[in-house]
Amino acid sequence: MNNPLVGIVMGSDSDLPVMRGAADILDEFGIPWEMIISSAHRAPEKTATYAREAAGRGLAVIIAGAGSAAHLAGVIAGHTPLPVIGVPISSGALNGVDALYATVQMPPGIPVATVAINGAKNAGILAAQIVSAGRPEVREKIIAYKQKMTRQVEEKSALLQE
Amino acid sequence: MNNPLVGIVMGSDSDLPVMRGAADILDEFGIPWEMIISSAHRAPEKTATYAREAAGRGLAVIIAGAGSAAHLAGVIAGHTPLPVIGVPISSGALNGVDALYATVQMPPGIPVATVAINGAKNAGILAAQIVSAGRPEVREKIIAYKQKMTRQVEEKSALLQE
Amino acid sequence: MNNPLVGIVMGSDSDLPVMRGAADILDEFGIPWEMIISSAHRAPEKTATYAREAAGRGLAVIIAGAGSAAHLAGVIAGHTPLPVIGVPISSGALNGVDALYATVQMPPGIPVATVAINGAKNAGILAAQIVSAGRPEVREKIIAYKQKMTRQVEEKSALLQE
Amino acid sequence: MNNPLVGIVMGSDSDLPVMRGAADILDEFGIPWEMIISSAHRAPEKTATYAREAAGRGLAVIIAGAGSAAHLAGVIAGHTPLPVIGVPISSGALNGVDALYATVQMPPGIPVATVAINGAKNAGILAAQIVSAGRPEVREKIIAYKQKMTRQVEEKSALLQE
Amino acid sequence: MNNPLVGIVMGSDSDLPVMRGAADILDEFGIPWEMIISSAHRAPEKTATYAREAAGRGLAVIIAGAGSAAHLAGVIAGHTPLPVIGVPISSGALNGVDALYATVQMPPGIPVATVAINGAKNAGILAAQIVSAGRPEVREKIIAYKQKMTRQVEEKSALLQE
Amino acid sequence: MNNPLVGIVMGSDSDLPVMRGAADILDEFGIPWEMIISSAHRAPEKTATYAREAAGRGLAVIIAGAGSAAHLAGVIAGHTPLPVIGVPISSGALNGVDALYATVQMPPGIPVATVAINGAKNAGILAAQIVSAGRPEVREKIIAYKQKMTRQVEEKSALLQE
Amino acid sequence: MNNPLVGIVMGSDSDLPVMRGAADILDEFGIPWEMIISSAHRAPEKTATYAREAAGRGLAVIIAGAGSAAHLAGVIAGHTPLPVIGVPISSGALNGVDALYATVQMPPGIPVATVAINGAKNAGILAAQIVSAGRPEVREKIIAYKQKMTRQVEEKSALLQE
Amino acid sequence: MNNPLVGIVMGSDSDLPVMRGAADILDEFGIPWEMIISSAHRAPEKTATYAREAAGRGLAVIIAGAGSAAHLAGVIAGHTPLPVIGVPISSGALNGVDALYATVQMPPGIPVATVAINGAKNAGILAAQIVSAGRPEVREKIIAYKQKMTRQVEEKSALLQE
Repeated sequence: MNNPLVGIVMGSDSDLPVMRGAADILDEFGIPWEMIISSAHRAPEKTATYAREAAGRGLAVIIAGAGSAAHLAGVIAGHTPLPVIGVPISSGALNGVDALYATVQMPPGIPVATVAINGAKNAGILAAQIVSAGRPEVREKIIAYKQKMTRQVEEKSALLQE
Repeated sequence: MNNPLVGIVMGSDSDLPVMRGAADILDEFGIPWEMIISSAHRAPEKTATYAREAAGRGLAVIIAGAGSAAHLAGVIAGHTPLPVIGVPISSGALNGVDALYATVQMPPGIPVATVAINGAKNAGILAAQIVSAGRPEVREKIIAYKQKMTRQVEEKSALLQE
Repeated sequence: MNNPLVGIVMGSDSDLPVMRGAADILDEFGIPWEMIISSAHRAPEKTATYAREAAGRGLAVIIAGAGSAAHLAGVIAGHTPLPVIGVPISSGALNGVDALYATVQMPPGIPVATVAINGAKNAGILAAQIVSAGRPEVREKIIAYKQKMTRQVEEKSALLQE
Repeated sequence: MNNPLVGIVMGSDSDLPVMRGAADILDEFGIPWEMIISSAHRAPEKTATYAREAAGRGLAVIIAGAGSAAHLAGVIAGHTPLPVIGVPISSGALNGVDALYATVQMPPGIPVATVAINGAKNAGILAAQIVSAGRPEVREKIIAYKQKMTRQVEEKSALLQE
Repeated sequence: MNNPLVGIVMGSDSDLPVMRGAADILDEFGIPWEMIISSAHRAPEKTATYAREAAGRGLAVIIAGAGSAAHLAGVIAGHTPLPVIGVPISSGALNGVDALYATVQMPPGIPVATVAINGAKNAGILAAQIVSAGRPEVREKIIAYKQKMTRQVEEKSALLQE
Repeated sequence: MNNPLVGIVMGSDSDLPVMRGAADILDEFGIPWEMIISSAHRAPEKTATYAREAAGRGLAVIIAGAGSAAHLAGVIAGHTPLPVIGVPISSGALNGVDALYATVQMPPGIPVATVAINGAKNAGILAAQIVSAGRPEVREKIIAYKQKMTRQVEEKSALLQE
Repeated sequence: MNNPLVGIVMGSDSDLPVMRGAADILDEFGIPWEMIISSAHRAPEKTATYAREAAGRGLAVIIAGAGSAAHLAGVIAGHTPLPVIGVPISSGALNGVDALYATVQMPPGIPVATVAINGAKNAGILAAQIVSAGRPEVREKIIAYKQKMTRQVEEKSALLQE
Repeated sequence: MNNPLVGIVMGSDSDLPVMRGAADILDEFGIPWEMIISSAHRAPEKTATYAREAAGRGLAVIIAGAGSAAHLAGVIAGHTPLPVIGVPISSGALNGVDALYATVQMPPGIPVATVAINGAKNAGILAAQIVSAGRPEVREKIIAYKQKMTRQVEEKSALLQE
C-alpha cells in the first residue's frame, strides 16, 4: 500500500464518527491516509512526537479534530512545518463555538487552516486540494468532484419542477 | 520576475492594511504573489473569472480577505480547484464575528481554509506551507522561521529575568 | 398559467421543508412563483445566470434561503437589480446565527432584505407586499390577511376566558 | 415637489447621522422621501397613526431605524400593509446585536426587511429596488449604480497594481 | 370575585404553558389576576387599548410574555404608567436570547422589569412583591414563601446526608 | 427630610457615574432615596444586613447595580421581601453581557427586576412606578413625564422638517 | 472515618447528577469529602455560615456548582479564605453560558477557580491537586491518574489501527 | 532569596501589563514567584520542559496567561500534576471570549482553574489561597486582605454620605 500523505488525528474516540468523514473523502480522491487518536493534554508527548516526525515520514498535511477547548490542531501546528487543518468538533454546552474559537484564533506565526464545526469532509477535500499541487490526477479528481456537485444541484432542482 | 504562486484578493481597498500582512510574509519566504481587489457582490464577474482562471495561470493558492457578510473566499472557492484561504476581517458593529462565521462555516463540498480574524500574516504562512510541498527551499525557510520564533520567545523571556 | 412574479431559490433540497412556507403563503395571496435549487458554491454559474436573467424574465422579487455560511442571497443580489429577500436557515452547530450574519450583514451597495431565521413564511408575505405596488387586489389580500390575524388573536384570547 | 414615496422614521434624533444615509442614496436615485422622528415607546400614537396612514398618503415603503430594543420597525409593520425596511442601529453595550435581533426576528405574519447594523444606505437602495417595479427610470438608475460600483472596484484594483 | 390586580398578557397561545407559571404563583399569594392574548404586531390596537385602560381598571402591574423579537412588554410599557414585567420566552433558533435582548434593552424613559428567559414564575413573585406595598397580608405571604424555600433547601440537603 | 423610599446600592464607587442616573430621576419624581456602596463579595455581611433591614426601615424598593459577575442584586433579593431592581453595569472585556446574564437569569423563587445594561435611569423610573401604587401624586408625575417625552419626540421631529 | 477535606456544595438537588462527578473522582484519589445543598438566594444564611466555618472545620477546598445566574461559588468565596472552585452548570435557555459568566467573571479581590460548564469531574481533580501540596500520596495518585489517561489514549489509538 | 512557589508564565511580552498583576499581589502576600515567557505554539518544548520540571523544582502552582486561542494553560496542565491557574487575556477582535473558552472549557481529566478575562490579580490571590494550606502566615494575610477590602467598601460608602 502507498505511504499515507494525510495524517488524521483526533482527541478522543468519540470524535471518530465526525472525523471518519475526512477519511472517506480522501478515499474517494485516492489519497492514502492514516488515523490516530492523540490528545494535546492527555498524551502530550505522543502528540508532539507525531507532529515532529510527520514531515520526515512523508506526510504532506495533518488534519486534527477536537472539541471543547480544542488545542490539538494548534499544538500540532507548533511542532511541524506542514500545513495543519483543524476541525472544531461540536460537544457539550457550547455546541462547538468553544472548539471553533480555540482552533481558528491562532496567534501570529502558527496558522491552523480551520474548517466549519464538524466539517471533517471539507477538511478532507482541503487536504486533497493541498496535495494536488504536484499530482495532476488528484487535481482532475477534484475538478470532477466539483462538476458532479454541480450536476447534482441541477438534478435536484429538476426533480423539484416535476 | 517569477510568476506569482499566491493570489491575494480583498473585497475593498479598506482591507489593504490588514491584507498587506499576507504579502509581507510571502516576501519573507521568497514566494511571488499578486494582489487584486475584487468583490463577490460588486464585481461578481471579475471575481468568478479570476477564480476560474487562477489554476491555469499557475497560481497554487488563493488568499481572500473580506469583512461583514464575507462571501469572497467562499465564492472564489466555488470557482476553483485550488485551496482557498479565507481571512475574516473585523469591521463594523459585530467586530468580525460575522466575517468569521461567513468564511468558516462553508457547507460540505467547498472548504475555505480559515485563519483568525485579521489573521492575514498567518494566511501568508499557511500559503507558504502549502506551496512548500515540492519546494524544499521554502520548507527550509518555514523551519527557520519557526526556529526564529522560538529564539525570540527565549530572548524575551531572558529579558524578563534581568 | 400566469408567469411567475417571485423566484424562490434554495441552496439544497434539505431547505425545502422551510422554504415551502414562502410558496404556500404566495399561493394564499394568488401570486405566481417558481422554485429552483441552486448554490452559490456548488452551482455558481447556474446561480449567476438565474439572477442575471430574472428581471428580464419578468420576476419582481427573488427569495433566497440558505444555511451555514449562507452566501446565496448575497450572491444573487450581486447579479440583479431586483429586490432580494434572504431567509437564513438554521442548520448545524451554530443554529442559524451563522446564516443570519452571512445574510444580513451585507456591505454597502448590495442589500439583502433579511427575515428571521427560518422565516420563509414572512419572506413570502414581504414578497407579496413588494409586488402589491401596482396590484390593488394583492394589497387588498394583505389587508385582509392582517385583519384575519387580528381576529385570530381575539378568538384565542376569548377562548382563554372560558 | 413630488410626493414622497419613501417614509424614513427613526426613534431618536441621535439616529440621524446613520439614517441620513438612506435619504442620500434615495436622492441619488431621484426618489422623493420624507423623514420623521417617532418612537414605538415614547410616542406610540404618533407612530401608529403614521404607519396606518402611510399607504393612503401614497408612500410605497417605510424605512425604520432604531437602536437597543429596536421595536420601531416591527410596530410600524403591524399597522401597515406596506413593506417595512428595518435598520438596526448600533448603540450601547451590545453594539447593535440587540437591535438586530429585535428587528429581524419578527414572528410569522409581520415581516420586517432587515438590513445590516447601521446599514441605512442599503435600506435606501432596497427601497429604490422596491419602488422601481413600475418605474423603469429607477430600474435603470439601479443598474447604472451597480455598474458604477463594478467600475470602482476595477479602478481601485488597477491602482493597486501601480 | 375580587377585581384583578395583575394583568397577564401573552403574544400567542403557544406561550400559555410558560405564562401559566405566573398565574399559579399569584394564586398561591391570593392575588387576583386576569389573562389575555394580544400581540404588539398582529393586534396592535387591542394591545394599546388594553395598556391604556389598565391603570383605570384598577390593575397594579402588567406581566407580558413574548418570544422572538419580543416587543409586547415594551409596547405595553409605552402606553401605561404602571410597572410592566417582561418575560422573554424561548422559541426558535436563538433560544430566547432574541426575546431577552428585545425585552430588557429598553431605551431610557420606558423601563421593562425583565425576568429570566421563561421566568414566568418569578414574574408572578415580582408582581406580588410590587402589589404587597399597601397589603401587609401579601407581604407576610412573601416572607413565608421565602422561609418555605429555605426549609426546602435544608430538607433536601438533609436527605443527601442519609 | 422624608425617609427614603428607595435604596440605591452599588458594588463599587466606579459604578457611581452610572447609578447616579437612578437618583436623578427619583429626585425629578420627588421620591426620597438613599445610596450606599456595598458588595456581595467584599462586604457580604454589610450587604446581607442592609437587605434584611430594608423593609423594616421603610424602604419600598431596592435598586442594585454591579458589573462583571454581578451578584449584588440577586444576593440582596435573597434577603428581602421587597422588589429588587437590578442594573447590569458594562465593564471589562465582556461589555456587560456578563453582568446582564448574572443579574437577569435568577433561578425560580428569587426574581430580580432587570433593566438594560447601564439602564440606571430606567431603574429609577421603574422604582417610581412601583412606589406610585398608593401615591397618586407620583402616578401623576409619571404620566406627565411620559407626556413630556411624547412632546419632545414631536418637537424633535418638527425640527427635522425645517 | 477521616474528616472531609473538600466541601461540595450545590444550589439544587437537580445539580446532583453533575456534581456527583466531583465526589466520584475524589473517592478515586482517596480524599474525604462532604456534600450539601445550599443556595445563595434561597438559603443565604446557611450558605454564609457554611462558608465562614469551612476553614475552621478543617476543609481545604470548597467546590460549588450552580446554574443560571450562578452566584453560589462567588458568594461562598466572599465568606472564606479557602480556595473555591466553581462549576457552572448548564440549564435552561442559555445552556450554561450564563452560569459560566456568573461564575468566572469575579471582580478583583475574590477569585473563583472556574472549570468547564458541567466540569464537576475536573473540579474534583483540581481539588485533589490543591490538597496534594502536603500529601505526597495524593500527588502520586494524580501522577498515576495522568499516566493512566495517556495509556488509554494509546490503547484507543491502537484499536483504531486494527 | 526564597525559592519561588508560584510560576507565572505568559505567551507573549505583550501580556506583561496584565500578568504583572499576579506578581504584585503575590508580593503583597509575601509569596516568592518567578516569571517566564513561553508559548504553547512558538516554544512548545520550552513550555513542556518548564511544566514537567515545575513540581520537582518546588513550585506549588503555575499561573498561565494567554490571549486568542489561549492554549498555554491547558498545555502546561497536560505536563504537570500541579494545579494550573489560567488567565484569559483580552486581545483582538473577540475581546477575550476566545481566550476564555480556550482556557476554561478543558476536557475531562485536565482541569485549568480559570479566572476572569484579564483577572491576573485574582489569579495571584487564588495561588496564595492554594499555597496557604500548610502556611498559616499566608492564611492570616489572606484573611487580613479580605478584611481590608471590607473596610474599604465601608469607607467608600461613608464618603458617599458626605
